[in-house]
Amino acid sequence: MNPKLKSKLKDILGKIQPISMEYYYKAQERLDNLTKPPGSLGRLEEFAKRYIAIRENLRPRIEKKVILVFVGDHGVTEEGVSAYPKQVTHQMVLNFLNEGAGINVIARHVGCEVKVVDIGIDYNLGPISDLISKKVAHGTKNMTLGPAMRREQALQALEVGMDIAHQCVSEKMDIIGTGDMGIGNTTASSAITAVITGRSVEEVTGRGTGIDDDAYLRKIEVIKKAIEINRPDPSDPIDVLSKVGGLEIAGIAGSILEAAANRIPVVIDGFISGAGALIATQLNPHIREYIFAAHKSQEIGHGILLEKIGLAPFLDLSMRLGEGTGAALGINLIEVGLKIYNEMSTFSEAMVSQADSK
Amino acid sequence: MNPKLKSKLKDILGKIQPISMEYYYKAQERLDNLTKPPGSLGRLEEFAKRYIAIRENLRPRIEKKVILVFVGDHGVTEEGVSAYPKQVTHQMVLNFLNEGAGINVIARHVGCEVKVVDIGIDYNLGPISDLISKKVAHGTKNMTLGPAMRREQALQALEVGMDIAHQCVSEKMDIIGTGDMGIGNTTASSAITAVITGRSVEEVTGRGTGIDDDAYLRKIEVIKKAIEINRPDPSDPIDVLSKVGGLEIAGIAGSILEAAANRIPVVIDGFISGAGALIATQLNPHIREYIFAAHKSQEIGHGILLEKIGLAPFLDLSMRLGEGTGAALGINLIEVGLKIYNEMSTFSEAMVSQADSK
Repeated sequence: MNPKLKSKLKDILGKIQPISMEYYYKAQERLDNLTKPPGSLGRLEEFAKRYIAIRENLRPRIEKKVILVFVGDHGVTEEGVSAYPKQVTHQMVLNFLNEGAGINVIARHVGCEVKVVDIGIDYNLGPISDLISKKVAHGTKNMTLGPAMRREQALQALEVGMDIAHQCVSEKMDIIGTGDMGIGNTTASSAITAVITGRSVEEVTGRGTGIDDDAYLRKIEVIKKAIEINRPDPSDPIDVLSKVGGLEIAGIAGSILEAAANRIPVVIDGFISGAGALIATQLNPHIREYIFAAHKSQEIGHGILLEKIGLAPFLDLSMRLGEGTGAALGINLIEVGLKIYNEMSTFSEAMVSQADSK
Repeated sequence: MNPKLKSKLKDILGKIQPISMEYYYKAQERLDNLTKPPGSLGRLEEFAKRYIAIRENLRPRIEKKVILVFVGDHGVTEEGVSAYPKQVTHQMVLNFLNEGAGINVIARHVGCEVKVVDIGIDYNLGPISDLISKKVAHGTKNMTLGPAMRREQALQALEVGMDIAHQCVSEKMDIIGTGDMGIGNTTASSAITAVITGRSVEEVTGRGTGIDDDAYLRKIEVIKKAIEINRPDPSDPIDVLSKVGGLEIAGIAGSILEAAANRIPVVIDGFISGAGALIATQLNPHIREYIFAAHKSQEIGHGILLEKIGLAPFLDLSMRLGEGTGAALGINLIEVGLKIYNEMSTFSEAMVSQADSK
C-alpha cells in the first residue's frame, strides 16, 4: 500500500467541516422577509439556505458550473449483465466530446461546462483534445472471480476524483455536478448499495439500461456471487469500493470529498453518483451536508441508497440515463433558489402588507 | 344571459380536437434512435412527444414563452379564511409590475414573458402601463351569502381568458403557462375541487398562505356553508365556477380553452391553476391532452384534483406560492425535453452500438 495515497485521503477527510448554521439562519431571515408567505417556495428556499451555509457568503451567485463525467469499464460485463456491449462506453465518450449526448444538450441548456474523465476505459482512445486522461486501469476485473480492483487502485481512483475537483476549485467553479458513463455500472452500484445498506440484492437491483427477465435474474445472481466471493467489509468503504465497485464510482466519491473540503456544493446525479456519494458519506458523515440529490432515478436501489445517506431528491422524471443529466437539471433549480434569495423584493421594499398578526 | 357569450364558448369547445397520435408516434421513433437506452430520459421524452403531437410539427422549437397571471379578489375573505389581508392582492400586482415577485425572478431565469391581467381586483389601480385591465367585477361576492358571481360574469371572465390567450396566439407564443394572484383563492379552489370530485371538504382543503388551526377549521366550515347555500351542480362546470369559483380561476380556464383550440401547449401551475384546468377539462375532456401539470403543490387538494383530470406533476418542490412560479419551472423542463429531441445525436450519427439483439 502506498502510504502517500492513504495520507492524502486522511488529510482531505480531516479538512471537512460541518456547514455553517450561522449563515443558514441568516439566509432564513432574509428569505422570510421576501414578498411571499414564509416557506412557500419550499425546497427552492432550502437550496438557497444550504448553498449559503456551505459557501459562508451571504450574497453568493452561481456563475461557473461544471458537470464531471467519470468514465470507466467493468469486467463484470463478461457475465452478460447489460443490454449494451462494452464498447458503448468508449463510443459514448466520443459522443460526449462531439456534443451529441444527452448530457451535452442539457448542460448547454443550463450553461454548464462538461469535463469528461477517462478514469478506467478498457480501450485506448489515444490523445484526444478535451478528454481528461487519468486512466487508473483498463476497466475493473470481473468481480465474480475476485476483487474488481486492488485497494491501491481504489485509492488512486479516489485521488483522480480529488484532483479533478481541485482543478474545478482553482477554476472558481461555484457548483459541481457529478455524472458517469460505464456499461455495467448499475451492477457495481447495486452491489455497493446492498453491502452498505444491508438490504437484499433483489431489493436494490434494477434493469439498468433495460435488460430482459433472463438477464435481470442473472444480474442478481452475479451480484450475490461477487459479494459472496469477495466478502467486502461494510464498515470499510474503501474495501467495498475496491471489491465490488468501479473506477468511475471511486472518481465520483473522490470529487465529492474534495468539493466538500473546499466548501463547494455538489449536485449528484442518479444511482451511480449515489453509490459514489454513499462511499464518500461513509468516510465522513458531514459530507452529506454538501450534497444535493437532484432526481429520483428509476433504478429501484436509488431511493434506498439516498435514504441511507439522508438526502431527498427533488426531480421525479423517471430518468435512468446517467451521464450527469439529472445533476445538470438539479443545478439549474439550485440556481433558481439562489436567484429567489438574491433578486426578490422584501415586503418593505415592495410595500406589501405582511400576514395578519395574531 | 347574453347569447353571444354562450355561443363563443360553444364555438371554442367545438374547435378542440384530440392531439395527433400520428405525430406522437413519429416523435417516438426519433427519440428511440437517439444515443440513449429507449425511454431512459423518462418524462423529458414524454414532454417532447406530447408537445409535437399538440403542435403537429416534427421540428418545433420553444422560443416565445409566456406566463399569464390572472388576478382577482374574493368576497369570501370577509370570513377570515386567509393569513393575509385582501389588499395584498393589488399590492402584489405592483410588485409583479416592478419585477420584484417570485414569478418575475423565475420567469427571467427561464426566459418567459409575464402578462399580468386584472380580471377582478377589488381596487382601482388606475391606468398602469403593463397591466392588462380587463376587470369583470370588483372581486367576487362572499360565497357564504350567495353565488360568488352571476353566471354571465363567469362567462365574461372565461372570455377574458380566451382573449388574452388569443393575443398570445397572435404573438406566436410557443407555450403558455398559467398563474394566479388573489387572496382567498385557495378557498374557492377547494370548493370547486370538492364539488367536482365529490370528495369531502376536509380532504381537499389546506392552509393556503399559512393559516393557524382556528382559521383552518373556519375555512372548512366556510366552504361547507358556501356549497350548502349555493348547491352548485357538479355536472355544470359554469355553475360551479360562478357559485363557488373566482374570476381569476375563470380567466385561467378560458385561457386553457383558447390555447387548446389553437393547439398551443399549456403548463399549469399549482392548486388555483389546477382548479381552472378542472373546469376546462369538465367542459371538454380532450383539453387534458394539451395540459402539462408542472408541480405538486403542498395544498392537499391539488393531488386529488390532478388525479381527477388525469395529469401527473413532475416537480416536487413543496411549493405553494402560486403566481405561475411552478408553471415557469415546468416550461423550462418541457423546453429541455424538446432540446433532447432536436439536438441529441442518433446512434448512426454518433457511431454508437445499439442494444444487443435478442
